[in-house]
Amino acid sequence: MSASPYKQLEQEFKRLHAFRGALSLLRWDAAVMMPRGSADIRGEQLAALETEHHALLTAPRITRLLDRAQANTQGLQDWQVANLREMRRQRDHAIATPVSLISRLAKATSRAEVRWLEARQQGKFELFAPHLEEVVHLVRDKAALLGQALNLAPYDALVDEFSPGITTADIDAMFKGLSRRLPSLIREAIAAQESRPPAPLTGKFPPGKQRALIVEVMKQIGFPFDRGRLDESEHPFTEGVPGDMRVTTRLDPNDLFSGLLGALHETGHAMYDLGLPQDWRDQPVGRDRGMALEESQSLLMEMIICRSRPFVRYVQPLIAKHFGVGGPEWDVENVYAHLTRVRRGLIRVDADELTYPLHIMLRYELEKQLLSGSLAVRDLPDAWKKGMEDRLSIRPGNDSEGCLQDVHWAIGSFGYFPSYALGAVMAGQLYESLRSDVPALDEQLARGEFSGLLGWLRTHVYGLGAKVPVQELLRGATGKPLSATAFIRYIEAKYLEAAPSEAAA
Amino acid sequence: MSASPYKQLEQEFKRLHAFRGALSLLRWDAAVMMPRGSADIRGEQLAALETEHHALLTAPRITRLLDRAQANTQGLQDWQVANLREMRRQRDHAIATPVSLISRLAKATSRAEVRWLEARQQGKFELFAPHLEEVVHLVRDKAALLGQALNLAPYDALVDEFSPGITTADIDAMFKGLSRRLPSLIREAIAAQESRPPAPLTGKFPPGKQRALIVEVMKQIGFPFDRGRLDESEHPFTEGVPGDMRVTTRLDPNDLFSGLLGALHETGHAMYDLGLPQDWRDQPVGRDRGMALEESQSLLMEMIICRSRPFVRYVQPLIAKHFGVGGPEWDVENVYAHLTRVRRGLIRVDADELTYPLHIMLRYELEKQLLSGSLAVRDLPDAWKKGMEDRLSIRPGNDSEGCLQDVHWAIGSFGYFPSYALGAVMAGQLYESLRSDVPALDEQLARGEFSGLLGWLRTHVYGLGAKVPVQELLRGATGKPLSATAFIRYIEAKYLEAAPSEAAA
Repeated sequence: MSASPYKQLEQEFKRLHAFRGALSLLRWDAAVMMPRGSADIRGEQLAALETEHHALLTAPRITRLLDRAQANTQGLQDWQVANLREMRRQRDHAIATPVSLISRLAKATSRAEVRWLEARQQGKFELFAPHLEEVVHLVRDKAALLGQALNLAPYDALVDEFSPGITTADIDAMFKGLSRRLPSLIREAIAAQESRPPAPLTGKFPPGKQRALIVEVMKQIGFPFDRGRLDESEHPFTEGVPGDMRVTTRLDPNDLFSGLLGALHETGHAMYDLGLPQDWRDQPVGRDRGMALEESQSLLMEMIICRSRPFVRYVQPLIAKHFGVGGPEWDVENVYAHLTRVRRGLIRVDADELTYPLHIMLRYELEKQLLSGSLAVRDLPDAWKKGMEDRLSIRPGNDSEGCLQDVHWAIGSFGYFPSYALGAVMAGQLYESLRSDVPALDEQLARGEFSGLLGWLRTHVYGLGAKVPVQELLRGATGKPLSATAFIRYIEAKYLEAAPSEAAA
Repeated sequence: MSASPYKQLEQEFKRLHAFRGALSLLRWDAAVMMPRGSADIRGEQLAALETEHHALLTAPRITRLLDRAQANTQGLQDWQVANLREMRRQRDHAIATPVSLISRLAKATSRAEVRWLEARQQGKFELFAPHLEEVVHLVRDKAALLGQALNLAPYDALVDEFSPGITTADIDAMFKGLSRRLPSLIREAIAAQESRPPAPLTGKFPPGKQRALIVEVMKQIGFPFDRGRLDESEHPFTEGVPGDMRVTTRLDPNDLFSGLLGALHETGHAMYDLGLPQDWRDQPVGRDRGMALEESQSLLMEMIICRSRPFVRYVQPLIAKHFGVGGPEWDVENVYAHLTRVRRGLIRVDADELTYPLHIMLRYELEKQLLSGSLAVRDLPDAWKKGMEDRLSIRPGNDSEGCLQDVHWAIGSFGYFPSYALGAVMAGQLYESLRSDVPALDEQLARGEFSGLLGWLRTHVYGLGAKVPVQELLRGATGKPLSATAFIRYIEAKYLEAAPSEAAA
């Protein structure tokens, strides 16, 4: 007697999961361990495994098994039905794009990424422009094919790859809400902060000691170092699979907080992935619910939990212990003022909670225009400069701090940027419900106790995996559909608070 | 117009090479970087990739292409014809063992390895015995099937997997030659050394400084750190592919030479792999010519080149520089005496050049008996003890320093041990020709100049890849077939030399 079609599919996807884990390790190694001269060889290995993964996922056998399993779902549990739906989703996305297009895109983006790096280093957009043009053309073709197959508008189809269940309409509604409040809020917050500027936090912070502090905090949060690692890389990231999570950060000897908060951002991702339903670890339904929700978890941890007074109360004695620093500039209020400083800056990855969504809005509009053809690649630098002036009243002096700052378009990641702003908004919405469900949250965090936070997230986010669409997950966790209002209430309360002496009571 | 069958095969094997590189990286990471608790997940990833590699290699398409390409080799260069032969060889080996047997063997050896470790730690052979029994049965089946398919005796078929072109007859002839001379030579060498025991080399050797010394020496030899790494692991090993070579060693703060010589042994492997023909890097004919020749390269580097007076002359000032040590015990003669000390010991991996082949001979005889059934697993401990007494006049006090010391049988590696002794003998044979072709070798090595050594090896060994059978390679390099006589001449000269004051002139 052979196994049921559903059970056979579980075996197939277990194998695909192992492939994904291997691919993730190859990428981690490339960024953390690999010698500089080995990039070509690694590229061949990644391409071979990705091609094979694609071939296995789109094999006629999978389609036949899916058809048979979905024709008769009687006797299946709700998790199994959801798993079937996610299997089908993965297969539909994979099969919509012909292998020839995937391969052309892989080659074009690998060339474009090299040229982007050169162009950024030299501040010469023209080195990158022809390659970006090629990538835009190929992504446009891909979006059209994907849109046809998934019955979505082309740009929505790209968004759906990263954040299933999110559409342009959701994104537009969010940005509309944010645009109404952010510009004035930024002005008010900067004015309030200027009246009480923090004392500078100077010093030398040896990487070894920074690492020890970060490991202590990550352990306290519950990161399992027997099934995960912390390393250094040029940009912080998280790779691996639950059971072998690899988090990185970048340690700057002159800035204690960039490395710590980078690591805590990634720990937010890692705790989400580690909290995914154990029984479904190697199945599609056991995966995260897309990049927007992923980003909500990293931003909730970094921006909301760790850039808060309670967390600073917990971490400040640890900083004193590891670095022997003291003095009034290391008081909770002064450190907190540093961690919540609002500034109009040119660089997205350095932006604070308030200005960040405006950086995303600019990219969102420009990438839609590039794909639709209403903006030519050669006009991108000027459109970027104008957009920054309109939104943040600052103008990049060159393209390296302008439209060349992000790698995303070079590697073909169109439709990804909105995830960052969606994540911020989702984090604010989840946080409002979390606070009301866990009234002792602040006292717990000040004691370095993360169980209230993580318990709530396990129940309402982590443990659901990809069982329900993200909108349904949000409604279940917060009672409301996706909306920017809770996020706006959160930033208003945080950045327009009364003078710190009163608030610190 | 589609590509020729041969060209299509090259594409297929290029992809298989990328798979092998990915597998190698997963194994390197497991031994060097992976968190302890992630072994199960890595096991699933390795199994998924290995199964897929096996499926791709044994696909009917490969067989069809091989048949068509081999039916008409007109127009192919000699390298291409040799490549076809090696493709066929890989496919024949892979297809001879049914997937079900491979999978049972994989599971049995993964269980057996865990139990072997426990048994060795506790000195309890009975914990391991039933698992070894299961492995022996499965390997016996595999050897029979492989032998039928390759038209070889079962044990020869196992040897052929590791060291193609080597048979039991070659191994027996080698051991016959060695048995005649080694026992008396060991007695004579020990007696000579006892008359002038070296002064002890004590001190603390911080791992960071050891690493700096090792990196300096490896760079001098030509190891490319922009396309390779040196790391620490429990046992030294080499993984990776040319273009991304990963060498490890084990650093003992109380013993400067174990880490250095472990690294140099692995550097011997790495330089061989790095010297393989660049144009055939991703093809079967561009691979090493089996484990016996691999081992000849690591032993030539470690035992013959680096445990020599000229090398000690080069490295001794570096040791002084890195560790600030001095005094008469660090003189060239005293260091050389340490590096060439002969001792009858129980542990294979600690053995010197003279006693090492006797350790292998014992394992070779016992593994043949286990497979033929003339020795029962339960009688292995006593047979081992008796064998050690007969050969080396010492008796293990327990099985941890007896038949439990090596992992090979637990992981199903029967037919592998002879490679070590074959490698030693081949190294001696190659060295004799190398010395006569490069008369200035000693002076070069004493100056830290490795170009004479590596140039000769590139011409006669590295650059040939797997183009010719190993016996033909040896004959081409040395003018003689495989034989132990050159090795015996080398060890006689080295270990029965006149008093050091005369020799050091």
